[in-house]
Amino acid sequence: MQRIFTILLACLTATCSLAQDIKKDSAALKQISNHILTNYQCYNDLRYLCKHIGHRISGSPQAEQAVIWGKEVLEKIGCDRVFLQEVMVPHWVRGQEEATILLKGKKIPVRISSLGNAVGTGAKGMTASLLKINHIDELKRLRPADVKGKIVFYNFKFDQTNINTFESYGPCVYYRWGAPSEASKMGAIGVVIRSVSSANDDKPHTGSIAYNKDYPSIPAVAISNVDADVLEGIMSVNKDVSMQLRTTCEMLSDVKSYNVVAEIKGTEHPEEIIVFGGHLDSWDIGEGAHDDGAGVVQTIEVLRVFKELGIKPKRTIRGVLFMNEENGLRGGKKYAELAEINNEKHILAIESDAGGSTPLGFSMEMETAKRDKIKSWAPLLQPYNMYSFDREGGGADIGPMKRKFGTPVMELMPDSQRYFDMHHSANDVFENVHRRELSLGAIAMSHMVYLVSLYGL
Amino acid sequence: MQRIFTILLACLTATCSLAQDIKKDSAALKQISNHILTNYQCYNDLRYLCKHIGHRISGSPQAEQAVIWGKEVLEKIGCDRVFLQEVMVPHWVRGQEEATILLKGKKIPVRISSLGNAVGTGAKGMTASLLKINHIDELKRLRPADVKGKIVFYNFKFDQTNINTFESYGPCVYYRWGAPSEASKMGAIGVVIRSVSSANDDKPHTGSIAYNKDYPSIPAVAISNVDADVLEGIMSVNKDVSMQLRTTCEMLSDVKSYNVVAEIKGTEHPEEIIVFGGHLDSWDIGEGAHDDGAGVVQTIEVLRVFKELGIKPKRTIRGVLFMNEENGLRGGKKYAELAEINNEKHILAIESDAGGSTPLGFSMEMETAKRDKIKSWAPLLQPYNMYSFDREGGGADIGPMKRKFGTPVMELMPDSQRYFDMHHSANDVFENVHRRELSLGAIAMSHMVYLVSLYGL
Repeated sequence: MQRIFTILLACLTATCSLAQDIKKDSAALKQISNHILTNYQCYNDLRYLCKHIGHRISGSPQAEQAVIWGKEVLEKIGCDRVFLQEVMVPHWVRGQEEATILLKGKKIPVRISSLGNAVGTGAKGMTASLLKINHIDELKRLRPADVKGKIVFYNFKFDQTNINTFESYGPCVYYRWGAPSEASKMGAIGVVIRSVSSANDDKPHTGSIAYNKDYPSIPAVAISNVDADVLEGIMSVNKDVSMQLRTTCEMLSDVKSYNVVAEIKGTEHPEEIIVFGGHLDSWDIGEGAHDDGAGVVQTIEVLRVFKELGIKPKRTIRGVLFMNEENGLRGGKKYAELAEINNEKHILAIESDAGGSTPLGFSMEMETAKRDKIKSWAPLLQPYNMYSFDREGGGADIGPMKRKFGTPVMELMPDSQRYFDMHHSANDVFENVHRRELSLGAIAMSHMVYLVSLYGL
Repeated sequence: MQRIFTILLACLTATCSLAQDIKKDSAALKQISNHILTNYQCYNDLRYLCKHIGHRISGSPQAEQAVIWGKEVLEKIGCDRVFLQEVMVPHWVRGQEEATILLKGKKIPVRISSLGNAVGTGAKGMTASLLKINHIDELKRLRPADVKGKIVFYNFKFDQTNINTFESYGPCVYYRWGAPSEASKMGAIGVVIRSVSSANDDKPHTGSIAYNKDYPSIPAVAISNVDADVLEGIMSVNKDVSMQLRTTCEMLSDVKSYNVVAEIKGTEHPEEIIVFGGHLDSWDIGEGAHDDGAGVVQTIEVLRVFKELGIKPKRTIRGVLFMNEENGLRGGKKYAELAEINNEKHILAIESDAGGSTPLGFSMEMETAKRDKIKSWAPLLQPYNMYSFDREGGGADIGPMKRKFGTPVMELMPDSQRYFDMHHSANDVFENVHRRELSLGAIAMSHMVYLVSLYGL
């Protein structure tokens, strides 16, 4: 009887203390939310980054400015430690680019965007017949003689039926990333892709290409969905359609750059690190507002809200503005290398690199017990419209941590309806980010960091 | 033993048939979703309504055009029955409007929007001292002599800390709807309100005023949040600030108008009606794109997807484009009156009148058992990001049905972050609606109508 009484008492105490914590945690989360929603500092940071610095591809003067700006902003917040991690990054430059469709003596100019890291045609350009390929299997059924000397037009379309547009992004990316070398393998001398985009507009979307070194690296460019529709229409009724293509993009020598890192030391378990971040570099068109200005300013905001509200984390919290996610991932790799050298213990890595729209949850890659622990906080997060914790996924910059140490990773999951309209294009500008939506992302990141810093993982 | 066996068998059969239905239902919902997301007909309908008809306040020629357009579109779909419900509606016209802040001999023009249904100042206008009131309690502490002959400036602010912005809308609306008569009661001759808006911009937002007939009806206008900030700043350092106000708005005689109704008869229970709708009228600025062009075209889309996919509902499904939600609710009242006269049995009423952004769930007002039945479908709806079924709420147009018959009501609940930036203002235009987000709303409505038409409520 005595034993049963003891057990009952223990249960009751546990229940009471749990109930009390939930109330306290709930109040803390609300305080964080109110602070961010009434100050909008992350929105003002984003305005500065987009309008005063602008787009900032690795190796560019703007990327350098962004590093200086990020460090200054983080120092001003009063973090315990702000430092740079040196990293050599690729330096690709776009140069000039122009294309013209040649049809029955007519010349139809078309707006293009060279794929990032692509080689150029050289100043003289090239002219060749176009070969339309809707799906890679079509190419694989052809003989090299059918492809040789031609410019392949990959006309693979964004699947509008997926509710989560990231599921449509994946299959399209193959045509930007890997398929150009398949065309080269068959003898093609250039590639034009339908933009990896959900928008029905005239903006071409760039993004990285990955050449297979077994075959010649050939020029590769994107055209907008509207232009791709036009070209598809032209080619469906005309056999002989050619393109004049001239791009002077090129890869220069690597350049020294930096990850920007800031941390607040944990009061009880300083050796346990929760890292979170976005990437500071962007593509060289638009302003990199959603990709990934949003992740950068949300990362800064997490640290700011801890400092401004005087929250002292039990575990060390560390924000990272990664360099070179877009065309090399050198910053993410360097961070993991240094973590190994410094023998650091990361209990969680969080990335925000899916845009600044209203967040709906987090995707995760971690063992079930840890995922369940995070999911047990769902009732605290649902008042902030955070409902989804079941998807798989981390972020690119924290991928090396996952692969090297098995670090649990997660990524903020905003509503994805608008993202691929803007991603990697001239549409990705500050005006297309909404201040409340952006702030809700900063709140979601801050809440997750707060809970893990308090309860561990 | 025999009895236990029978029970077990019954359970097993129930489980199996349930499992089968879920699979079948899931496939049907996916088919609906794919159809809407690949055709975007609701988006094209919205473009027509906004760009070819434009804003359409009750009694206006555009409202008449919208009725004709709505009927034609619904007839083209091939519904079993398309008909109009005649209803007399108020006919308020804005006329001219201008305002100037007078400060130390300077004249500062300020952009205004008369509140809907308000009286005008007359062609000569009025000039009076401004009295700033941040909260109604401040007014109530004053003596009539402090207020008499003045223009009251209600400076109540939109609370940015609520995650669901509708929670901030409610308290602000009091200052537009009821508070002007409180000022009149104290002797004020005019009212200026800070717009009921979440936006930090220069657009004034209109919306209905409700005069208390015990006191004189006085002119009332809204100014933008930016102008309200300026005026607040001016009045915080200057004692004597006046306003010249001139508005020629007026209420004309009632005009004959219509609800547009279309239905597909149920195959098994035609007497059970599921009604769903949005409102066809809008305010007379902007294009009524989110409010409530979105609800109108989503309503049309539900009927279209049933017809185009050849889905034959077991119960009657009926779409209504209500007239005069904004400044009289006459259409909603008329619909309920006619339902009573015709002895109709409505098992559910659904409204979409909260904008065309990504839907997150439905709010409901109905008895627990019915709510639980709807919530049991949550696993079918979650793949479409529909997570929230716990909020209370129906829609304005279906309110009379609820009050008259106790009809279960529900309202589509889109993400609310952007809505009150645009609501009732020049910002509410087609360009600010996203085609995938709008389509997801049409999908959510179609799914709910599909499930209730199949399983009842």
